Amino acid sequence: MKQSKMIIPTLREMPSDAQVISHALMVRAGYVRQVSAGIYSYLPLANRVIEKAKTIMRQEFDKIGAVEFLAPALLSADIWRESGRYDTYGDDLYKLKNREGSDFILGPTHEETVTLLARDAVKSYKQLPLNIYQIQPKYRDEKRPRNGLLRGREFIMKDGYSFHANYESLDATYNDYKTAYEAIFTRSGLDFKAIIGDGGAMGGKDSQEFMAITPDRTDLNRWLVLDKSVGSLEEIPENVLAEIRSELSAWMVSGEDTIAYSSESDYAANLEMATSEYKPSGKIVTEADLVKVETPDCKSIDEVAAFLQIPTEETIKTMAFKADGELVVALLMGNDQVNDVKLKNYLGADFFDAADEAEVQAIFGARFGSLGPVGLPDNIQIIADRKVQDIKNAVVGANQDGYHYTGANAGRDFQVSEYVDIREVKEGEVSPDGQGVLQFARGIEIGHIFKLGTRYSDSMKAHVLDENGRSVPIIMGSYGIGVSRLLSAVLEQHARLFVNKTPKGDFRYAWGINFPKELAPFDVHLIPVNVKDEEAMMLTASIESNLLTAGYEVLTDDRNERAGVKFSDSDLIGLPIRITVGKKAAEGIVEVKIKGTGDTVEVHVDQLLETLAILTQDL
Amino acid sequence: MKQSKMIIPTLREMPSDAQVISHALMVRAGYVRQVSAGIYSYLPLANRVIEKAKTIMRQEFDKIGAVEFLAPALLSADIWRESGRYDTYGDDLYKLKNREGSDFILGPTHEETVTLLARDAVKSYKQLPLNIYQIQPKYRDEKRPRNGLLRGREFIMKDGYSFHANYESLDATYNDYKTAYEAIFTRSGLDFKAIIGDGGAMGGKDSQEFMAITPDRTDLNRWLVLDKSVGSLEEIPENVLAEIRSELSAWMVSGEDTIAYSSESDYAANLEMATSEYKPSGKIVTEADLVKVETPDCKSIDEVAAFLQIPTEETIKTMAFKADGELVVALLMGNDQVNDVKLKNYLGADFFDAADEAEVQAIFGARFGSLGPVGLPDNIQIIADRKVQDIKNAVVGANQDGYHYTGANAGRDFQVSEYVDIREVKEGEVSPDGQGVLQFARGIEIGHIFKLGTRYSDSMKAHVLDENGRSVPIIMGSYGIGVSRLLSAVLEQHARLFVNKTPKGDFRYAWGINFPKELAPFDVHLIPVNVKDEEAMMLTASIESNLLTAGYEVLTDDRNERAGVKFSDSDLIGLPIRITVGKKAAEGIVEVKIKGTGDTVEVHVDQLLETLAILTQDL
Repeated sequence: MKQSKMIIPTLREMPSDAQVISHALMVRAGYVRQVSAGIYSYLPLANRVIEKAKTIMRQEFDKIGAVEFLAPALLSADIWRESGRYDTYGDDLYKLKNREGSDFILGPTHEETVTLLARDAVKSYKQLPLNIYQIQPKYRDEKRPRNGLLRGREFIMKDGYSFHANYESLDATYNDYKTAYEAIFTRSGLDFKAIIGDGGAMGGKDSQEFMAITPDRTDLNRWLVLDKSVGSLEEIPENVLAEIRSELSAWMVSGEDTIAYSSESDYAANLEMATSEYKPSGKIVTEADLVKVETPDCKSIDEVAAFLQIPTEETIKTMAFKADGELVVALLMGNDQVNDVKLKNYLGADFFDAADEAEVQAIFGARFGSLGPVGLPDNIQIIADRKVQDIKNAVVGANQDGYHYTGANAGRDFQVSEYVDIREVKEGEVSPDGQGVLQFARGIEIGHIFKLGTRYSDSMKAHVLDENGRSVPIIMGSYGIGVSRLLSAVLEQHARLFVNKTPKGDFRYAWGINFPKELAPFDVHLIPVNVKDEEAMMLTASIESNLLTAGYEVLTDDRNERAGVKFSDSDLIGLPIRITVGKKAAEGIVEVKIKGTGDTVEVHVDQLLETLAILTQDL
Repeated sequence: MKQSKMIIPTLREMPSDAQVISHALMVRAGYVRQVSAGIYSYLPLANRVIEKAKTIMRQEFDKIGAVEFLAPALLSADIWRESGRYDTYGDDLYKLKNREGSDFILGPTHEETVTLLARDAVKSYKQLPLNIYQIQPKYRDEKRPRNGLLRGREFIMKDGYSFHANYESLDATYNDYKTAYEAIFTRSGLDFKAIIGDGGAMGGKDSQEFMAITPDRTDLNRWLVLDKSVGSLEEIPENVLAEIRSELSAWMVSGEDTIAYSSESDYAANLEMATSEYKPSGKIVTEADLVKVETPDCKSIDEVAAFLQIPTEETIKTMAFKADGELVVALLMGNDQVNDVKLKNYLGADFFDAADEAEVQAIFGARFGSLGPVGLPDNIQIIADRKVQDIKNAVVGANQDGYHYTGANAGRDFQVSEYVDIREVKEGEVSPDGQGVLQFARGIEIGHIFKLGTRYSDSMKAHVLDENGRSVPIIMGSYGIGVSRLLSAVLEQHARLFVNKTPKGDFRYAWGINFPKELAPFDVHLIPVNVKDEEAMMLTASIESNLLTAGYEVLTDDRNERAGVKFSDSDLIGLPIRITVGKKAAEGIVEVKIKGTGDTVEVHVDQLLETLAILTQDL
């Protein structure tokens, strides 16, 4: 492909509105252009990457018997009313009316559409299991679209759905998808983890998230590609390295999710779902009397504990929430943080939010700083974190501004509905399997698999006849990959700083990309330095033709531009191999450069294919 | 691919709401399912056809240097306001608001998006020409969605756009697209014509439409596929043939466009644009006096001519229109019909419709049956068809209900602004090139290419610097293919009635499909008749494996169903080759059937690949 025929509008500078490196590079390297907030055009380079990702996915899904289909994006609100999601999905749902005034939405996901399809097309357990997927634009009217393709309003998703007559079959397909996802992300060149995820959002139970790990900003060896003029990291002066470190740390860390993983076992979970080991203290303590004490100006747990001269672990924090319209009270030990997702999932709530302080004050008689569980109306559900059961003679708010109780004990002074794990884990706690301690990493969610069970087939009445002729709801799974987001995740991990030294001895560094082999828009960037040199251009044409015949995809920079512009654009575009047809063209010698290592080798065109075959093996 | 893993919900009967055969068959054969009016899910079979069409298109566009990209479907209204189309496009445009209340549309086409892209990415004539295309869902809120994928509200389009520094370059790319389109439609197995089209809708000038020709319902040879049990058409009894003819004619003719083409030359045009030869009569006639005569109860031209005992060719019909808010009068000879498109294009109007009778009556003083050009206010533009200049001493409405003038003459009694071709041609008129006479056919528009010129670059200020450093608007072309509609057009032409004779001697016929080779979802339908016969199933597996290795795409009917159900589904699904593993499986002999001819041959599996290689050459 001639570069002059592609639209690759590279920029000299990073776009000023980009905060993460993937966003900056995909705009600067001419891969995408924003059309409106969170909505992008995929220019020819990005379109090729998306198509390569599709090919990888199709190959891996073929292996697990998944069949591709294509649903519309414009969906009648009626089927979303059947599932109940039309009203509960929230403001992210694009709603519109057609010319007759009927309500429609732009699909953010397609559980309803496929449930309807299965309801109509599948009558008997004998037709199951089925496993279908599609790749198409999805829509979410994000409150704050940001970071390029990481959080867009129109984005490309692969969404798969499976239908089963029993849970064993669902488990098998769920595991197949896990295998397929691991193959897809590995082939996409990603460092990723499969972790325990929150299935609640899709109405499901078991779920796993696939997280692209945000790379360490301090590890220069992974970020820098040294030109042969530089030699080694040691040769770069400290002031240049300091600049480089500062450049690296200037970019925002992209992962919006925190992953808690064990230092020793394979336990890994989204912080939203992570737990740590809990062992009851078993301590026996004599119950003291309940005494109301004045705690003036003590708003926080720390202030109360300091004022009363006790450890924070002897206080109970009382928080109030609204879950589907009901007031719910949560108790936590001292400075433990509530994990909203755990509490919401425990309650099985669709709507969940902090309670309004005015409402709380009307019921409790006090403001947030002085809430407590003693003396609350019987109809208020009190959920306590597991660790709360170890606190005897606790300090709790007295439901009177400026006062707390000491000596409060569950069972005697207040009733706990249930002790459950609702706290957010902290780094360094023991992994729930008892092996190793929890460590945190940041990651980008690129895939998610869910066991939906009968969430949709129940509400939409998608039933089949089972072996005994009874009508039973179809059991379902759903499986997503953020395809456009995958491109961002790849660039977060494959952005590089290319460092070289000028003949005068100055060090230069510039951002670029080292695309993983299977996703790169082309395999080879073929660069004739001087397009007016006829001999060199004939050699270029002959190399291009030979490479194409050998199955390489080639981008040929046929532009009449300076060598510096061509090389700089080539680093930005980021193809794995660069072949330069330069001064030795007359001798039939070209330069081959491996983008990822900066290694270069001069090769005679007669040996070019053999050399490439060897060099590309290791990519 | 195992048939049990695909979702192919075939139906026993034609769907009752389908009026055209393509719609009926694509639902009955399990290719698509309607989700809401004009909005379909492409089930796995249809998705494969769509993907094959995409592959064909990509191959042909590669040849002409067109590069694929992908724009969003959700577009800011702002850019459509820049082009002016936000307000003029009409009720077909889906409009919605995002959460901040900004106006958006769902793109029915992407001229604005690419013009914006070119405005930002292209600065100099040196970067031109460029030629890009995309394949994506498009949206039109059709007043009356109908006939399956023929007129949908969400549909798949290939839309291409080219950008040029001069008109010669536009002409070259336009011609490249014509070549590519002809290759694409030929490979899609379509009988089609490239005709002169109406470019007005896209704001363009030259345009060509590609029309899939609606096949003749009376030509039994093209519709019937005779099983070997039938032998020849002559053996079918007349009462059965009568039934078959009635079945064929029961389906609505699908083409919404009428094509006027020459019986001898290659002239062909959409009826909207068609002209015929016009030679002025040159007759010299003495002008008579203008006389008002009573024409009681004469509402039509025929009634007036009969009452006055003159030929209709001596009358002038006067019609009133509103073009962009202005009243315009059109004059036609006798019973000639006005061609709205020609008149609208001549006027260069965005809005064009018949005038309201009440408004007309207020200005003319008469109702529609008695309108005439005599005595109209000077500011009303009067456009006459060319043939009107041959009518001397004409009869025209007197602008008084129940009265006409005789002896009316242009120039003396009324003023004509211009004589232009605004009439609808009739079958049998001489072709405009003087060669042959016009014949009419019905067709489905499957492609359309336009020379847009500077329609969008002017309004959206997409300029480049030319060779002299002057800022000039980019010259553009746009090129569309209705990809989902293409599937309907293929089925209109490749639907077949499969006829066989039962052992008892009864004739049966049933609808099915004979898919063209390159678009068929699979190449071969492999049917083991009895899935409980282990030997036959082993042979089936071995054949499947050999066929896949040889590069065939195979659908294997692994369902435990009766042979009749399997064969009937196979005729519906319509793959080019059917291989039946039946009673002679133990001997290694299978039956190969060519779907399009009904020819069958028994083959030993050892010769199967060779036989298929020969048989599929002719498909």
